[in-house]
Amino acid sequence: MIITGGIWVNVHTREALPDHDIAITAGRIAFVGPDASHCRGPETQIIKANGRYMIPGLCDGHMHIESGLLTPAEFARAVIPHGTTSMFTDPHEIANVLGLKGVRMMHDEALMQPVNIFTQMPSCAPSAPGMETTGFEITADDVAEAMQWPGIIGLGEMMNFPGVSAADPKMLAEIAATQRAGKIVGGHYASPDLGPAFAAYVAGGPADDHEGTCEADAIQRMRQGMRSMIRLGSAWYDIETQITAITEKGLDPRNMILCTDDSHCGTLVNDGHMNRVVRHAIDCGCDPLIALQMATINTATHFGLEREIGSLTPGRRADVILTSDLKTLPIETVIARGQIVAQDGACLVECPHFDWPDTARKTVNMRNRLAGDDFTIHAPHGANGVTANVIGVVENQAPTKALQFELPVTDGRVQATGEVAQIALVERHRATGTVVNAFVSGFGYTGTMAMASTVAHDSHHMIVVGTDRDQMALAANRLREVGGGITIFKDGIELALVELPIAGLMSDQPAADVAAATENMMQAMRDCGCTLNNAYMQHSLLALVVIPELRISDLGLVDVRTFEFTDIIVS
Amino acid sequence: MIITGGIWVNVHTREALPDHDIAITAGRIAFVGPDASHCRGPETQIIKANGRYMIPGLCDGHMHIESGLLTPAEFARAVIPHGTTSMFTDPHEIANVLGLKGVRMMHDEALMQPVNIFTQMPSCAPSAPGMETTGFEITADDVAEAMQWPGIIGLGEMMNFPGVSAADPKMLAEIAATQRAGKIVGGHYASPDLGPAFAAYVAGGPADDHEGTCEADAIQRMRQGMRSMIRLGSAWYDIETQITAITEKGLDPRNMILCTDDSHCGTLVNDGHMNRVVRHAIDCGCDPLIALQMATINTATHFGLEREIGSLTPGRRADVILTSDLKTLPIETVIARGQIVAQDGACLVECPHFDWPDTARKTVNMRNRLAGDDFTIHAPHGANGVTANVIGVVENQAPTKALQFELPVTDGRVQATGEVAQIALVERHRATGTVVNAFVSGFGYTGTMAMASTVAHDSHHMIVVGTDRDQMALAANRLREVGGGITIFKDGIELALVELPIAGLMSDQPAADVAAATENMMQAMRDCGCTLNNAYMQHSLLALVVIPELRISDLGLVDVRTFEFTDIIVS
Repeated sequence: MIITGGIWVNVHTREALPDHDIAITAGRIAFVGPDASHCRGPETQIIKANGRYMIPGLCDGHMHIESGLLTPAEFARAVIPHGTTSMFTDPHEIANVLGLKGVRMMHDEALMQPVNIFTQMPSCAPSAPGMETTGFEITADDVAEAMQWPGIIGLGEMMNFPGVSAADPKMLAEIAATQRAGKIVGGHYASPDLGPAFAAYVAGGPADDHEGTCEADAIQRMRQGMRSMIRLGSAWYDIETQITAITEKGLDPRNMILCTDDSHCGTLVNDGHMNRVVRHAIDCGCDPLIALQMATINTATHFGLEREIGSLTPGRRADVILTSDLKTLPIETVIARGQIVAQDGACLVECPHFDWPDTARKTVNMRNRLAGDDFTIHAPHGANGVTANVIGVVENQAPTKALQFELPVTDGRVQATGEVAQIALVERHRATGTVVNAFVSGFGYTGTMAMASTVAHDSHHMIVVGTDRDQMALAANRLREVGGGITIFKDGIELALVELPIAGLMSDQPAADVAAATENMMQAMRDCGCTLNNAYMQHSLLALVVIPELRISDLGLVDVRTFEFTDIIVS
Repeated sequence: MIITGGIWVNVHTREALPDHDIAITAGRIAFVGPDASHCRGPETQIIKANGRYMIPGLCDGHMHIESGLLTPAEFARAVIPHGTTSMFTDPHEIANVLGLKGVRMMHDEALMQPVNIFTQMPSCAPSAPGMETTGFEITADDVAEAMQWPGIIGLGEMMNFPGVSAADPKMLAEIAATQRAGKIVGGHYASPDLGPAFAAYVAGGPADDHEGTCEADAIQRMRQGMRSMIRLGSAWYDIETQITAITEKGLDPRNMILCTDDSHCGTLVNDGHMNRVVRHAIDCGCDPLIALQMATINTATHFGLEREIGSLTPGRRADVILTSDLKTLPIETVIARGQIVAQDGACLVECPHFDWPDTARKTVNMRNRLAGDDFTIHAPHGANGVTANVIGVVENQAPTKALQFELPVTDGRVQATGEVAQIALVERHRATGTVVNAFVSGFGYTGTMAMASTVAHDSHHMIVVGTDRDQMALAANRLREVGGGITIFKDGIELALVELPIAGLMSDQPAADVAAATENMMQAMRDCGCTLNNAYMQHSLLALVVIPELRISDLGLVDVRTFEFTDIIVS
């Protein structure tokens, strides 16, 4: 294949060079120059760039495929038309459900795709040891084993940043196994403390970080020798506040990388993927060539892949985008490994599915069907009312508030009333029969309803929220029946269902279908009285026992401010 | 150790940040910030920077230790006061003499040093297969074995660039062995052709190149996805002509790296090492912070060593220079791995010597003592005079000229007269007894003299040049007696001797002593009538059968224009 007459966007030198040809053979770039006619044979496919820009396929420096509610194959199919040809993905969610075997399945499906999906070995399952029970745990031995797999590029985000700073042996063993393999340790430093604790974290091994939210975060990460990954996810908006380190402070941009971290399937269908991120960076005032470097060569260099991806130069995989404008970045033609994989927004290539075994498809492992009584919260003997600790959901924020409410008692049972609903964590990995009950406020649910989800970060049991115990049982049993997903019941009727049969986390249906089902689900939440923006995210994060203030786990109600369990009933 | 109150030269962000401390423990940087007093204990060593610049130890991106006529230990001792704390060195010369075992010895002595000497596994011994016989040959299996050694960083310069462009299986096997080990393939593309042959070379694997001599060379290397190494050696002046790609054309400087390639011991003693190179780059108009990036982080990034060296950030080896001026770059204090190794030009640290075995010390392996008759060039029967092919030395240039001279015949022997002297290649690896005789012109020798050297690139037999056959025998026998080096005889008296007992290439004496002996030797050359600048280099390169036009090897006289053997006597 020869692409003729394009503007060669050179991310090594930061130049746009008109009137160049690119010759491709065996999936790789053979030649780039003003005239590639010496490469032309009788069967050479000619693609006329007609003066358009030829840019390298875009790289997502850090992301979780599961966040799209899609399998790797369907995620790939959704993002290829957006020009993403390389992803660095940490299958942290499936690791919590299925352990190393689940990571391997994601890794294997990733390697089947026509674009490059590099897997970061999850580092932290469980996220909060002692505070929750995951389906499986990840050990340093698991990490060492995974480093030998062909598609593993490094260690996934090291979330236990206090552990690294304090030289926790397990964390350092995982890091050592990664570095011994010559691979990159991903970071996750979710603290505003940029002093000694941060220096100790950097010294411990993590080489990048995507948790920065302000300019000082980005500057300090780069100065201290990390790569600053700045993200635009479906719900993360961390570029505008950090890219000023380049656009205003003038720092060397080589150590800044663009990523998404988490993209919902709806975002992929409606808004884009890395093309959306690069456009946004440009809209924030970044020079388009620098923004493109941040989504191509900077990423490749970081992961030691400069000879494989990230630029349009000899020997590299032929991952090329044709676009007529560098600023608005319309993705007109996408070539991956020398093959046209998308044209004008349509994916033209097969994205093969892994043959997911029953161990991955039947993961909702509950001991019994549940009944309304399983969700009963008993009052202390003789009480007419109680003061209860209540998880307070806050709109558009991941942290919750630890609230207290006075709640009435009927027949010895505490009743959720007014703005308070019930929440239950239903154990689903080992069929222990555990149901942990508590209270939540802020969703605004009214009437007789319940919503359940097996996407329940990070240990991914099942979270059920409802105003009525019988509806909660219906919803939980429904997810057991379909093998995982999200459902909403009202008055005994299922309003919406998103089936997520793979590990209870992902669908193997096309992104558009899953996005439509998800939109139905969000409409059903509104129909049940929920007024919050993006409330499904709130629901799925209520068991994330690493973010303050109050969360639920299979072991009880957790006060994340103190990392201690707390009682549901105060008095 | 804490360094207090310095200007932190940050090569990640390209900033100079005043009023910073650096805390060091266990040889590595623990913390960099405005105040490191929390790291201070009762035994902490405090170094006051007093407002001076703190810069990372300098890295030499490509070099040959043997060029200094010094062992790795003595080379290290000579360059440490100049601020060089990391070297990427290709022991190509010893590989020709002693093969893989010789490389291992260099590698082992390198790892004993208090600074970082990373070894590039030599790729091309012999340099010109079929045209010369080396002591040993390097195979792809050797390369694969070496990649497992702890100090090997990659493959040394791949000089067989036509082979790589044409997919020579042996060259590609060496490259594959290197890439499989996740290491870097060094380049050597000594051709002005920047078209398809160059693209094929880049595609073949070499990731850097230091053979560029003009701006277009540098630009094309960087655009095509190589790192452009620009060199200032004792005899290489390739920075001024290439750095304009940055200083005038404004290309992204991340892909340019400074190196020396070859430094004579005299240069190390009198002029400096990487400090000299950085200063020169600055004198050529380069921003000092960019010049420092080219000698620190750019190099570290290229070799995948960003977590180890190249910046002053947590976790890295504590290799720090204190200097009061970024432009003139006085090297005042050098700290390597947390230890003060040099102060005001004096090396304060031991550089341990490897216990070089007899196999490395007794490498001048000649069958017999030679006599004057061994250097006889017989004329065709009955001839009174002949036309001879003569190697024409050109001042200050590596290429020679293929000349012809009319020479008289006495007693059946062709006589070197006038500006023509005799040259002999004396085999010294396998005691074959081979002496190849020919003629050379241009040195200007007069009187009765001879000069011999076992430094004889690249196969390093012995080159003898003289006006008299008996003096030639004396000189050759003298090097056999001392185990290698350089000697000059005049009228039966030895005027100068540089002993190079290690492989006939290196001295294990201090650089100052070797430099003084070398200066004596060059004076002796002048005393014998030689008027050329730097004529020892010419002498030692006369067997380099990869550079045109006429050379000598153990297999005969080589016309490098055609890669064919040619006759000494034309008619």
